Amino acid sequence: MKAAFYNGNKKFSIVENAPVPPGPNEVRLNVGYCGVCGTDIHIYHGVMDQRVRPPQIVGHEASAVVAELGNGVTHVKPGDRVAVRPLKFGAEHPFDKGYTHVGKNLQFIGIDSPGAFQNSWTVPAYTLHKLPDTLSLEFGAFVEPLAVACHDVKIGRVKARENCLVIGGGPIGTLIAFVLKEKGANVIVSEVNESRLNMLKSFGFQVINPVSEDLKKRVSDITNEAMADCVFEVSGSLAGVEAMTEVVNVRGRIVMVAIHGGEKKPVDLFKFFWSEIELLGARLYQEEDYEEAIKIAAAGNIPFDSLITRVSPLAEIQSVFEEIDRNPAGMKYLIDCQRL
Amino acid sequence: MKAAFYNGNKKFSIVENAPVPPGPNEVRLNVGYCGVCGTDIHIYHGVMDQRVRPPQIVGHEASAVVAELGNGVTHVKPGDRVAVRPLKFGAEHPFDKGYTHVGKNLQFIGIDSPGAFQNSWTVPAYTLHKLPDTLSLEFGAFVEPLAVACHDVKIGRVKARENCLVIGGGPIGTLIAFVLKEKGANVIVSEVNESRLNMLKSFGFQVINPVSEDLKKRVSDITNEAMADCVFEVSGSLAGVEAMTEVVNVRGRIVMVAIHGGEKKPVDLFKFFWSEIELLGARLYQEEDYEEAIKIAAAGNIPFDSLITRVSPLAEIQSVFEEIDRNPAGMKYLIDCQRL
Repeated sequence: MKAAFYNGNKKFSIVENAPVPPGPNEVRLNVGYCGVCGTDIHIYHGVMDQRVRPPQIVGHEASAVVAELGNGVTHVKPGDRVAVRPLKFGAEHPFDKGYTHVGKNLQFIGIDSPGAFQNSWTVPAYTLHKLPDTLSLEFGAFVEPLAVACHDVKIGRVKARENCLVIGGGPIGTLIAFVLKEKGANVIVSEVNESRLNMLKSFGFQVINPVSEDLKKRVSDITNEAMADCVFEVSGSLAGVEAMTEVVNVRGRIVMVAIHGGEKKPVDLFKFFWSEIELLGARLYQEEDYEEAIKIAAAGNIPFDSLITRVSPLAEIQSVFEEIDRNPAGMKYLIDCQRL
Repeated sequence: MKAAFYNGNKKFSIVENAPVPPGPNEVRLNVGYCGVCGTDIHIYHGVMDQRVRPPQIVGHEASAVVAELGNGVTHVKPGDRVAVRPLKFGAEHPFDKGYTHVGKNLQFIGIDSPGAFQNSWTVPAYTLHKLPDTLSLEFGAFVEPLAVACHDVKIGRVKARENCLVIGGGPIGTLIAFVLKEKGANVIVSEVNESRLNMLKSFGFQVINPVSEDLKKRVSDITNEAMADCVFEVSGSLAGVEAMTEVVNVRGRIVMVAIHGGEKKPVDLFKFFWSEIELLGARLYQEEDYEEAIKIAAAGNIPFDSLITRVSPLAEIQSVFEEIDRNPAGMKYLIDCQRL
């Protein structure tokens, strides 16, 4: 079988590789589609080499078909179509308080161990969530990022009719917007890229371009001065951090979805005190978020087709990553892991 | 009657002033004791002159005896001993979502309108909370700052046996520590002033001096690596903001009690994402916090006597503010508003 190895220095190579026979409580999968995540782009840029230890097979937004069961696996059978929750839980630590999905010893499959950019992938059986018949393998690759969005909205405790602002309308921000819509929230998305804005608008979302418009004033106008009950900072930008405390109302929640690595960012802590604002970190997902994501994906209200920028065979992975780097308007790139 | 007017430029004057007859739903009080708050010190330093508009009578941490009722007042009678919740609620605004205690149009009595540093004070009747017989007027002056502490601990959702770190062991930090103790929490206080540290130690709290000790390591040792479930940032310092994200565990809460005015402060937003940390702003108090504060104060477990640095007659208010400025080890200064 073939696997795409990330070799460091922005280079992938397609290599003949032996499938890994499933051990006890493991399952070997024929990978269907695997989306390219922002984290994969970070890896491609070399900033995570120490953790990834190239050459490594990355990729973690996968749908798949069960090919072979290890001993003790009962909840899936060969031929089942599944989405993979790529978390390997480590030893418990008192620091974690039982939140294994963000635990000190968590290993992420596709970063800390081989991922899905290959024909055949062997993973722990508990990572598998069955896909309903109505959900295609192609759309099943959205379950992982959609579970992130479900987790973020859960952390934000969003209720129907609340005013929500998503700062950053890329793939995750857009999926958050759709989950918010499912909850009955009033959704506004702030995004700087015009073609993304047009797409978001075509989906029925209220949109703001914070470069050409006064974000605070627009949010005030749209909400009749109530401002946002919940803000999702997904942009990872300084401008996003500056905006988040400007647009949120009393006891409003700001969900920190973006990965603000590097330098610490200046935050208006006075506003937190003054209006009793909450900042809520949100990372990855829990089992229930996968179940919810599958339910929402299967309900058919998310136009996944429009969110797919390109589907490419595994052999073209190098050109896909190069294109993503050149295309700020791109949304979701999928790799078809059975096609070469 | 006499009133202490703040005239701007670090100056008070004691002036003969006519008592204000209580209007409908108002009560005239003979003020008992009024504590000096950090905010009063800010006012004294002139940084709030625009809001205070001197000459103004300030002071808001007051106990009092009911002297005269306006029409329609039924829940108190002359002679009742009370604590004052110095909030005047303004018109509702959609931005506030019903949280009147931090509403857009809130007026704070003692800043936006005359306060308690006078013999006789007229306030809305709804601001009054009766003191139980077992609580002296002197200790009753602690109800206001203790209600702040109760509010902060409520916002932090602290449960019994949780590890809590209070950053800053001044009057508010110390009262937070006592409320946490009432909740059955494991309390650690970080403070830089040695004489405050000794006092906190004598109260039975675990203490850390972050200047001479490694705060993170000490918290880790005390908690057996579990770190803090809830952190209260009361210091208002850059060091406090740096420390808060270092000592908190997964899904840990950081309650922002301090008023971080001026420049925005650099915050480690990555940590919020990574460990799903919460930052929770907390300001003032709600009615229920006053009731809880009175209950805790009356229970007799807080050694208010040790927290009182000095009790001074109203006529000496100038020298009290001057002393506070010189004494970083000071805790609570009370003004006896009936003594001249």
